[in-house]
Amino acid sequence: MAATKQLLDYNVDEAVDLFVLLKSADVRTAKNGKQYIALVFEDQSGEISGKYWDASPDDIENYVAGRVVHLQGKRENYQTHPQIKIFHLRLTHPGEPNDPNSFIEQAPMSRAAMEEYITQTVFEITQPTWNRLVRKLLQEYADKFYTYPAAKSNHHAFQGGLAYHTISILKLAHSVVKQYPDLNAPLLFAGAILHDLGKTIELSGPKSTVYTLAGNLIGHIVLIDGELVRACDALKLDPQAEDVLLLRHMILSHHGLLEYGSPVRPALREADVLHQLDELDASIMMLDTVVEHTAPGEFSERVFAMDGRRFYRPTTTTPQPPTTD
Amino acid sequence: MAATKQLLDYNVDEAVDLFVLLKSADVRTAKNGKQYIALVFEDQSGEISGKYWDASPDDIENYVAGRVVHLQGKRENYQTHPQIKIFHLRLTHPGEPNDPNSFIEQAPMSRAAMEEYITQTVFEITQPTWNRLVRKLLQEYADKFYTYPAAKSNHHAFQGGLAYHTISILKLAHSVVKQYPDLNAPLLFAGAILHDLGKTIELSGPKSTVYTLAGNLIGHIVLIDGELVRACDALKLDPQAEDVLLLRHMILSHHGLLEYGSPVRPALREADVLHQLDELDASIMMLDTVVEHTAPGEFSERVFAMDGRRFYRPTTTTPQPPTTD
Amino acid sequence: MAATKQLLDYNVDEAVDLFVLLKSADVRTAKNGKQYIALVFEDQSGEISGKYWDASPDDIENYVAGRVVHLQGKRENYQTHPQIKIFHLRLTHPGEPNDPNSFIEQAPMSRAAMEEYITQTVFEITQPTWNRLVRKLLQEYADKFYTYPAAKSNHHAFQGGLAYHTISILKLAHSVVKQYPDLNAPLLFAGAILHDLGKTIELSGPKSTVYTLAGNLIGHIVLIDGELVRACDALKLDPQAEDVLLLRHMILSHHGLLEYGSPVRPALREADVLHQLDELDASIMMLDTVVEHTAPGEFSERVFAMDGRRFYRPTTTTPQPPTTD
Amino acid sequence: MAATKQLLDYNVDEAVDLFVLLKSADVRTAKNGKQYIALVFEDQSGEISGKYWDASPDDIENYVAGRVVHLQGKRENYQTHPQIKIFHLRLTHPGEPNDPNSFIEQAPMSRAAMEEYITQTVFEITQPTWNRLVRKLLQEYADKFYTYPAAKSNHHAFQGGLAYHTISILKLAHSVVKQYPDLNAPLLFAGAILHDLGKTIELSGPKSTVYTLAGNLIGHIVLIDGELVRACDALKLDPQAEDVLLLRHMILSHHGLLEYGSPVRPALREADVLHQLDELDASIMMLDTVVEHTAPGEFSERVFAMDGRRFYRPTTTTPQPPTTD
Amino acid sequence: MAATKQLLDYNVDEAVDLFVLLKSADVRTAKNGKQYIALVFEDQSGEISGKYWDASPDDIENYVAGRVVHLQGKRENYQTHPQIKIFHLRLTHPGEPNDPNSFIEQAPMSRAAMEEYITQTVFEITQPTWNRLVRKLLQEYADKFYTYPAAKSNHHAFQGGLAYHTISILKLAHSVVKQYPDLNAPLLFAGAILHDLGKTIELSGPKSTVYTLAGNLIGHIVLIDGELVRACDALKLDPQAEDVLLLRHMILSHHGLLEYGSPVRPALREADVLHQLDELDASIMMLDTVVEHTAPGEFSERVFAMDGRRFYRPTTTTPQPPTTD
Amino acid sequence: MAATKQLLDYNVDEAVDLFVLLKSADVRTAKNGKQYIALVFEDQSGEISGKYWDASPDDIENYVAGRVVHLQGKRENYQTHPQIKIFHLRLTHPGEPNDPNSFIEQAPMSRAAMEEYITQTVFEITQPTWNRLVRKLLQEYADKFYTYPAAKSNHHAFQGGLAYHTISILKLAHSVVKQYPDLNAPLLFAGAILHDLGKTIELSGPKSTVYTLAGNLIGHIVLIDGELVRACDALKLDPQAEDVLLLRHMILSHHGLLEYGSPVRPALREADVLHQLDELDASIMMLDTVVEHTAPGEFSERVFAMDGRRFYRPTTTTPQPPTTD
Repeated sequence: MAATKQLLDYNVDEAVDLFVLLKSADVRTAKNGKQYIALVFEDQSGEISGKYWDASPDDIENYVAGRVVHLQGKRENYQTHPQIKIFHLRLTHPGEPNDPNSFIEQAPMSRAAMEEYITQTVFEITQPTWNRLVRKLLQEYADKFYTYPAAKSNHHAFQGGLAYHTISILKLAHSVVKQYPDLNAPLLFAGAILHDLGKTIELSGPKSTVYTLAGNLIGHIVLIDGELVRACDALKLDPQAEDVLLLRHMILSHHGLLEYGSPVRPALREADVLHQLDELDASIMMLDTVVEHTAPGEFSERVFAMDGRRFYRPTTTTPQPPTTD
Repeated sequence: MAATKQLLDYNVDEAVDLFVLLKSADVRTAKNGKQYIALVFEDQSGEISGKYWDASPDDIENYVAGRVVHLQGKRENYQTHPQIKIFHLRLTHPGEPNDPNSFIEQAPMSRAAMEEYITQTVFEITQPTWNRLVRKLLQEYADKFYTYPAAKSNHHAFQGGLAYHTISILKLAHSVVKQYPDLNAPLLFAGAILHDLGKTIELSGPKSTVYTLAGNLIGHIVLIDGELVRACDALKLDPQAEDVLLLRHMILSHHGLLEYGSPVRPALREADVLHQLDELDASIMMLDTVVEHTAPGEFSERVFAMDGRRFYRPTTTTPQPPTTD
Repeated sequence: MAATKQLLDYNVDEAVDLFVLLKSADVRTAKNGKQYIALVFEDQSGEISGKYWDASPDDIENYVAGRVVHLQGKRENYQTHPQIKIFHLRLTHPGEPNDPNSFIEQAPMSRAAMEEYITQTVFEITQPTWNRLVRKLLQEYADKFYTYPAAKSNHHAFQGGLAYHTISILKLAHSVVKQYPDLNAPLLFAGAILHDLGKTIELSGPKSTVYTLAGNLIGHIVLIDGELVRACDALKLDPQAEDVLLLRHMILSHHGLLEYGSPVRPALREADVLHQLDELDASIMMLDTVVEHTAPGEFSERVFAMDGRRFYRPTTTTPQPPTTD
Repeated sequence: MAATKQLLDYNVDEAVDLFVLLKSADVRTAKNGKQYIALVFEDQSGEISGKYWDASPDDIENYVAGRVVHLQGKRENYQTHPQIKIFHLRLTHPGEPNDPNSFIEQAPMSRAAMEEYITQTVFEITQPTWNRLVRKLLQEYADKFYTYPAAKSNHHAFQGGLAYHTISILKLAHSVVKQYPDLNAPLLFAGAILHDLGKTIELSGPKSTVYTLAGNLIGHIVLIDGELVRACDALKLDPQAEDVLLLRHMILSHHGLLEYGSPVRPALREADVLHQLDELDASIMMLDTVVEHTAPGEFSERVFAMDGRRFYRPTTTTPQPPTTD
Repeated sequence: MAATKQLLDYNVDEAVDLFVLLKSADVRTAKNGKQYIALVFEDQSGEISGKYWDASPDDIENYVAGRVVHLQGKRENYQTHPQIKIFHLRLTHPGEPNDPNSFIEQAPMSRAAMEEYITQTVFEITQPTWNRLVRKLLQEYADKFYTYPAAKSNHHAFQGGLAYHTISILKLAHSVVKQYPDLNAPLLFAGAILHDLGKTIELSGPKSTVYTLAGNLIGHIVLIDGELVRACDALKLDPQAEDVLLLRHMILSHHGLLEYGSPVRPALREADVLHQLDELDASIMMLDTVVEHTAPGEFSERVFAMDGRRFYRPTTTTPQPPTTD
Repeated sequence: MAATKQLLDYNVDEAVDLFVLLKSADVRTAKNGKQYIALVFEDQSGEISGKYWDASPDDIENYVAGRVVHLQGKRENYQTHPQIKIFHLRLTHPGEPNDPNSFIEQAPMSRAAMEEYITQTVFEITQPTWNRLVRKLLQEYADKFYTYPAAKSNHHAFQGGLAYHTISILKLAHSVVKQYPDLNAPLLFAGAILHDLGKTIELSGPKSTVYTLAGNLIGHIVLIDGELVRACDALKLDPQAEDVLLLRHMILSHHGLLEYGSPVRPALREADVLHQLDELDASIMMLDTVVEHTAPGEFSERVFAMDGRRFYRPTTTTPQPPTTD
């Protein structure tokens, strides 16, 4: 029985034997008319798909999303996509691992550490209106903010991903304001904290994440703008005062281009910087995963969220540089 | 002295002699180093520009935006743009026309008639949430709604243009729902009434219209969404209930494409129809003006808001068709 | 035996049992090397596809396009596309429904009513040249005009769809000229009647519609322009006189953009309006079908002819508004 | 007095003294309020513009398009555009050159030679339908075909330019069919001869060329298609027979892209080749002129018809290569 | 046993029986869980694919890329793509054809003839710098230049295709410089010879061609520029002298547009011509193959490298025109 | 006499009185036919333009680029562009400031400090090939690297701007590799140092910067690739070894998109990061200048290098946040 090895640690053609969570399970009809289950397996290392052929009615009832199962099979590639060829699948026995939560991918930073970092940054938002609005909205959405993913897929699609992505941007933002002191740090920090908070309304939650109706019809950018306007009412602030408009603009313009869903393009230095830092963090996170799944000397699959480019993992190794600051 | 003839009634090379309003007056420096005033004249027939050369300090003080003046000159074309060559300009004497308001272009429908039409249509919004939200927002913005233009320039850029444009769309919408009865008429009507209401925040007012800071940083589409969310709070409605989301989506998507500033594309039949009727009315209004300013047998100047196309005014005349319904 | 229930009335997972027409039947080879028939079933409610696995040579001979068959199976979704899982298929027995024509989707208006409407509108084309050209071309293509679909697929892809789509545009056009009286109604009506008449040459006919060689190499827009030029010769009209050019331009520009196959962009108000009304009717017809096939509270599949957008069918219901005009 | 030196032979800052034709003469108002005449001078070497300041009413009457004048001045550059600074201008005296036709730029091949080449090529169109259609249309438009320019400006904008451009393409086509013998030479030749013949309807004539109404509303591509359909009627050919469709397609698709005004994209090898040869000849002709007007070691002005690119004229000289075939 | 008939000579549904080379052989898993081999067969007439179902471990070991096999089956179409349905496959017996090289598609010109043509053209490069650089690089890469294909797929994807494509362009270039004598022939010839030489570094070789790492990370355009700079060093030429820059620019700009991978757009007449001739030859070669694989009266499959267009093969036949020059 | 106040310190309408450098001086002809000099004044605070009307031959001889002059005038805006209205201009007298170099805008970091920073970073390039190549190229181009601007205009268009821009990117890069330790720091640093080094060949120098012929025909990206290949030869490295290819790819792809002149898109994580940091630094630098030239509460002019956007300078002020790291 496999123990410490995890789902994404297996190489192509290696035999797989471990407990995993069924992240999703869709029943479909094969070309030959029989039913099969398209499964996505998950543990803390990530996720991978597999097909369960010739599914019986019992199988269909047993193997549903959210169940922990014991999986035996082989790691393969199907048209360059990694998958598990399933040899044997069964429900867990009493005494075996059974808690779905222990199989879910988590942000690489504890919730406590993330809360600490955010709280610390809020202190640096020295402009009172922005400070009050950020506190008010964080308070209202705290629980979702620290547990939701940042996206359905692609980058930061794990529990706590939304807060983790926000913190990564804040770290970059701290470096940037140190290097370019003319930038308005409190505005940049406040904008960064709120920029994706609307995802707590756009997405359904940390597990089996889908778009809500509000997400589909309004989108997270305008949703959080609406909540910010409500917060103004609650705090007796004028939503059209300059300082509020600046913060709303930071959020509304952070996708950079109208085509990407921002109703306005950045018209403040800090808004332009926020947009760029958002892209920088998202792309590095995505490419880390992509490169990790690629063998040295090979090109990755096409990365759709990066214009379908393929990325190369070099074989050249380098000694770590001496640390500098 | 000219009396009933108005600014846009003069042909090229015709002598001009009438009272007009100075819509704008910008002092600039000519290539020869002297100052001149770039004027825009306006009366109820529309507007036309002219340059006042070699302006003295007194001239600069006298000829400012908002003043009524007596103008003598000649109607010319400067690089295909109509303009007035100014022979003589003076302030008005006592007893001469002097009220700026009587020189401002007006919607071709009285405010009372427009209010009547809107009120009538609100009765047809039989879905209670939409009815309450429309009433609430109309009440709040009534005065601006019936006096603001629909745009700084291009189409419906006259006093009352915003309500008039809204009513034109509502009239088209009535025809459309009669022809396609599956459409949700109350949703279409509610969306039509609110779709451009944010322009009361985006624009500065009916005269010397410019964009406000809120208009530049947020835009009328998101501004009215914010007001709608506030109205929900006031009416104790959930801004994320389906019926509210439908109405918000109508407004948010009415520009049709992300590139045109809608943060979401139409995802409801009625939203798509609203977008198309908006374009239909705006383009007909624009082309009416364009064709009116073009001589029969000629092509107009390029119309920038219509992709720079030029439009032909035919010489072919047609008997009016017998009226049908 | 099913009787009044029709093909598109079944819900997912419901057992299907009815007579249908085989609209198309393509023999293909499955992944397992055996032959199957990809069928499209049709009745007056619309069409839906299904796969007949392990087809014998007899099956291949029997189940060909144009045959009426008795179908038993189940309504399913295959990757969000509706389809019928076939349990049993057989040819009809004597005495059972057998006439393909009674299974073909029809325009929701009788041919007589459509002819009546068109004839009435022709009276309103009071400009003599346009009136003569419209009469001449309608006379020549009448039979095809009243039976052809407006397209191979997407909108108005049913028998009589071409005339029905034309009439829908004419109805909208009547509303529009009433609202904007400066528009040249006879030109708009003449252009609307002829705008898609070239489809009688571009398409092969009302059943199993495909593109003709002329359709592929020339396209319906230029084909009808050629026929209009010939009609001029027959009527001793100069094809380059202004009134003829205006009508030709209406037809040539009605796709609005060069990218959509119009060799010129609209340069007449009426041409621009015709283009917009054409789009309005086509999109409403398409979305009616799309929404009808979507469950309340769900988003439709992607609609390719509408930029791949998905449309939402609300659960919110509304009382019908009181009728107004 | 200058004699053999022509308009485009002068270098920057060189004194100019010669007889030229006034190609166009537009009266305009200067910033200082005085009138001036914007002139374009022309002789067989090409054209160049100049401004005649402080024009008196007499000047305006004398210096009109179509007059031959005596010009003294200096060759200058105004914002990188060549122009003549005018020192002195006068009408011609009796006995001086006076015939406008001797100042018009001509194709570098006599009309007789061009007719000879075309006639010869028609013999090679061995497919009878294409041969008859080409003969019929050439016969009808011969006089215009051999005298019109190929465009208002840019390439081949000189008398006889249309036929000359056609012949250049035919020469390239002869080389190509020799190298790629699978191509259908008669189809390529017939398409090449007719491809731009519609310009005889689109343009107003060889002098002071403007677009006709038919040119603006229909365009040369569809205009010649209409004439070809009429020719079919006259010759009792079916305009929808395959061989006629192929020829129509050659013409309709020769702009290559819908965006460039072709209602269909090339769907025949020969149509694709015709499009490419058309572009090749047009661009070489344009660049020859551009490079000729650029000093060695310099970049040209931006060439708008070539995406605004600038072209470099090298200083490197090369011995002529030995002739080969 | 089939003898002279080749792979692409078979019609749909015809029985196939011949020796072929396995160009590629990929083992995959079918929907039913069994393994199959996706094969590409090749002989001098071209290539075609086929699937070998239910492959045993022995089959997988035997049927690998590079082997000559005996194939029995049937020519079919699978979703409009030609393929072979395999009835029987076996390795060759002693005495049967066995040499892979005799099954590889070859350029339709011998290597000797190609070398002769290139050598002859080099004599015409009368500018000494260009002549020396061309000689130097040809010398270095001669063997690859005469054996590599011009691309992995699409046009000239056969042994010797690179040199053959180069020569086709040179032939067109000879015609063009004769017709437009102002063009710099030596520059055009030198640029043509070198323009794709970088493909000898970008591609892996004449068989089972894939992109090298240098091809993927740098691309053939910049790779050959680097080699040209090295050649300058070796020949003691300044890589930034004007004559060298001209030649480098010819190569760098030959894709015409930045979007197609040229780091600069053509800024020399000869560079623009080279780009156009490159496209002309590539497209004719591609379309020759496409049309050859299409039945008369039919449209081809979509050609991806030609914007997904489909091409029509006419049934109209034409007598060969009398030869002219 | 003004002393410590500099060119960009003056507000609109303020009297100007100081010594400045003539950065450029172009003689042009005014609309009234007289000559004037279009001047650009420069000192260490930046640059601003002005027109010297009615220039005499003496003026034209005296006021040439590179001269220090004494300027009296007024700071104005001409169509939103800042300019100086010149009242009086004269050459300097003996004893007055006269050294052009003391009037040139400089990087805000001394050359020594920049050299120190670069040297330090080179130590961190622990991969030997990259280290040797960076040293070799820096050595060759050191003097130009530390004095050239990073561009003709827009961002870092001052003396030393190239090195300063490089160092800004390196500083960002240090933060990024600390935050994302999987990135290959030596590769990122080596790529950053070399990415714009080709500008030392593309541009003419630190003063009156123009593009060289090599810059126009080849571009800085490919120019430095060529130099890197030569450096490989000198160091006996294979330019197609993986480690060299990685570094070449960093440089070649740093514009991110083919449309922006990169012949390949980033295919390494580090290449993508370099591209993003390059954009981040360039845009912040540009916007710093833009915002500095805009009054609080106003929008800037359109910034062409930022898609023509206008940027807002808020009036909201914020207390500096407490320093954190």
